[in-house]
Amino acid sequence: GYGRFGLGYTSADLNPTGGESSTWVEQRMRLNIVASTTSDMGVEFGAKMRMQYDDGDSAVAGNRAQFFVSYEGFYAQVGNVTTAIDEDTSGLFYATEIGLTDTGFGDSRSDFFAYESKAGNANKIGLYGKYTISGVTVEASYINPDHYDFGLAVEDESSLVVSYAAGPLTVGAGAVWNGAGIDGNDIWYLGGKYAINDMFSAGLTYIDEGEVAGLDLGSTTSIYGTYTVGALGVTAYVAQIDDYDAALVYENDTSYGVGASYDLGGGVKLLGAVHSTYDDETYAEAGVKFAF
Amino acid sequence: GYGRFGLGYTSADLNPTGGESSTWVEQRMRLNIVASTTSDMGVEFGAKMRMQYDDGDSAVAGNRAQFFVSYEGFYAQVGNVTTAIDEDTSGLFYATEIGLTDTGFGDSRSDFFAYESKAGNANKIGLYGKYTISGVTVEASYINPDHYDFGLAVEDESSLVVSYAAGPLTVGAGAVWNGAGIDGNDIWYLGGKYAINDMFSAGLTYIDEGEVAGLDLGSTTSIYGTYTVGALGVTAYVAQIDDYDAALVYENDTSYGVGASYDLGGGVKLLGAVHSTYDDETYAEAGVKFAF
Amino acid sequence: GYGRFGLGYTSADLNPTGGESSTWVEQRMRLNIVASTTSDMGVEFGAKMRMQYDDGDSAVAGNRAQFFVSYEGFYAQVGNVTTAIDEDTSGLFYATEIGLTDTGFGDSRSDFFAYESKAGNANKIGLYGKYTISGVTVEASYINPDHYDFGLAVEDESSLVVSYAAGPLTVGAGAVWNGAGIDGNDIWYLGGKYAINDMFSAGLTYIDEGEVAGLDLGSTTSIYGTYTVGALGVTAYVAQIDDYDAALVYENDTSYGVGASYDLGGGVKLLGAVHSTYDDETYAEAGVKFAF
Repeated sequence: GYGRFGLGYTSADLNPTGGESSTWVEQRMRLNIVASTTSDMGVEFGAKMRMQYDDGDSAVAGNRAQFFVSYEGFYAQVGNVTTAIDEDTSGLFYATEIGLTDTGFGDSRSDFFAYESKAGNANKIGLYGKYTISGVTVEASYINPDHYDFGLAVEDESSLVVSYAAGPLTVGAGAVWNGAGIDGNDIWYLGGKYAINDMFSAGLTYIDEGEVAGLDLGSTTSIYGTYTVGALGVTAYVAQIDDYDAALVYENDTSYGVGASYDLGGGVKLLGAVHSTYDDETYAEAGVKFAF
Repeated sequence: GYGRFGLGYTSADLNPTGGESSTWVEQRMRLNIVASTTSDMGVEFGAKMRMQYDDGDSAVAGNRAQFFVSYEGFYAQVGNVTTAIDEDTSGLFYATEIGLTDTGFGDSRSDFFAYESKAGNANKIGLYGKYTISGVTVEASYINPDHYDFGLAVEDESSLVVSYAAGPLTVGAGAVWNGAGIDGNDIWYLGGKYAINDMFSAGLTYIDEGEVAGLDLGSTTSIYGTYTVGALGVTAYVAQIDDYDAALVYENDTSYGVGASYDLGGGVKLLGAVHSTYDDETYAEAGVKFAF
Repeated sequence: GYGRFGLGYTSADLNPTGGESSTWVEQRMRLNIVASTTSDMGVEFGAKMRMQYDDGDSAVAGNRAQFFVSYEGFYAQVGNVTTAIDEDTSGLFYATEIGLTDTGFGDSRSDFFAYESKAGNANKIGLYGKYTISGVTVEASYINPDHYDFGLAVEDESSLVVSYAAGPLTVGAGAVWNGAGIDGNDIWYLGGKYAINDMFSAGLTYIDEGEVAGLDLGSTTSIYGTYTVGALGVTAYVAQIDDYDAALVYENDTSYGVGASYDLGGGVKLLGAVHSTYDDETYAEAGVKFAF
């Protein structure tokens, strides 16, 4: 797991907890409890529970369990699983995420299922599988949000991501059908990143968004670049939204952000970022993150 | 602790969670947090908390703590304790339990207290003690379900089990008085098992059941046998109920089941079982269980 | 963490859980989950979560996280922090605490913030810092009970404690401003302890209490002494209250207690104590406490 703490800032009238303070202490303690054993044939069987504290939480409960099986290049999960689109081994779907809290406004604005770090929906059970060979990774997931059949008006969500990483190049493509169990909420993405040299890398991600409440979210296109020298890394991005339903209101079709990280060694990093959102608000945070 | 996952099936109209799906993903992650220390005289003092996820749970809380003391052949618990009848060191009281979820319809149909793996009754506090010498194990427990005296209409439950294991033979006898704190809900059992050779063992358990809502549950008699060859084990049982109050409705006085286990090594087992219940329903499950 | 269990007794009509039993099983299991890492420059960054079971609890949740930084003589916390007055490195503010449950009626009767071992107020966030040099320890804390600014009618609490320990002498002084976020609820204390020889030590603590509901709690003066021989320790105290608002009702201006501890080695201690309270009630407990 990891811990992180620092300061957050927003120019909006209300902070993320709904209070009026424009600054707040940013906090997370993530504890992964993973236990596994390996059979005589070399198949690893494991189970995972997460206890995660975030600022605004009054206590911590263990989340719904995840079970996994691993054998050579193959890896699968059952229970409270990740999804192909959310796991996205290539890292391109979430490529604009920077700073202490891994926030990026180039992220998809659509709904889709993901691993639940906190108490969740016991009736939502899924499968996730991943296979990697020669730099190609194929990930697939299937989530049934009415596993026990209580007659809910939900669809099964499917997701598929294929990515390829070789030397300086990373490319990825993925899709979700019936994202978050909503009929017709289909999403797909295409992305590529190239490391020009040891110091510079740059990339582009295009997301064809899904629907929310019958409104088309259009598309999100983001470009991003990272400059690294020694322990210091600087990442900047610009994201552009387009083709969305006229009933949706954005102050601005563009968001952008810049973030920096400084490695203190021993798994400790100083991280900070400033963003400008589609609502023309400024969001910033800085602090320290440490792995354990 | 351990993890287990697989598939469950029922022919009944509703599955155990109350939904209409006849199949479901069977899940459990059991995490025992045990901490202990040993005094200079060699007495071990410890405390235990359990975090257990089962399918249908939306989150996991730590359960009520148990404290234990161990010294040579003597072992005692206080707090959220096991009971003599539920612990049953001989294994004969629960001898028909098979498969992924340790289910057996030869189990007692009566109510009695047991260790609580989840959030429980803070007003229920008990003592449990065990002493083993020359193959004889004596277990006793005492549970007060109104420990703090809020004037509840409950009785104290007492339980005693004596068992003997020597070479191929295991015999056991036990009793519960005021099971689950219900006045007059007394239960007793007698059982014996014999290993004919390295491959075959067979046994019989007779349970004189208690009362529920003033109705006598009669008796439960079960026979069972296990065949083991290498990593494979097969167990079958037949259970017969008798002498119960006419107001109780069973489709059938007999239940039975057969289960198999296959040891993959490293603490990993494949397990499966099929049962026919007193309600003439079929219940089955199969999956993998791994210790950690 | 540690575990402790034993028996409690009160002469009052109701026990601490509100039931009528005069005796009860005293229980606590405290599990501290601490994870930390050290940067290349030698700064330690860590996070802590606590899971604590006490008698009367029906389940256990993880508490709000605490983050800490440590570098040479300097130590700081952010999040769910301790406070200077509650941490009180000198031990003089809580000097009358004895027995299995560390109870002392010479404790301050005022309200002030402290580390929360259970689920707590997510809107209360603080800072705590400690610096030790040449036997002098300075501790300071600042707690904002409306961190996110929901417009609550509360004040920020500040606390400062300075203590000095050298050879047989320990002295300490501390203060709290706006204790527990209550405007004008200021508390201060002065204390000193002296070890006359290897066997005897004695001390005095004077607390100028704060206010509750506009009523002045006056002062609390306590004297205490400890006699130690080998594995056995005996501590006694007398506490006297004075100058409190006439609207407050106490049966008696004096409370006192005597406790004993016996070290069994391996982190295991037998502990017991008897107290007479300001309400002229007798409170007693005895049991075993073990560190892990």
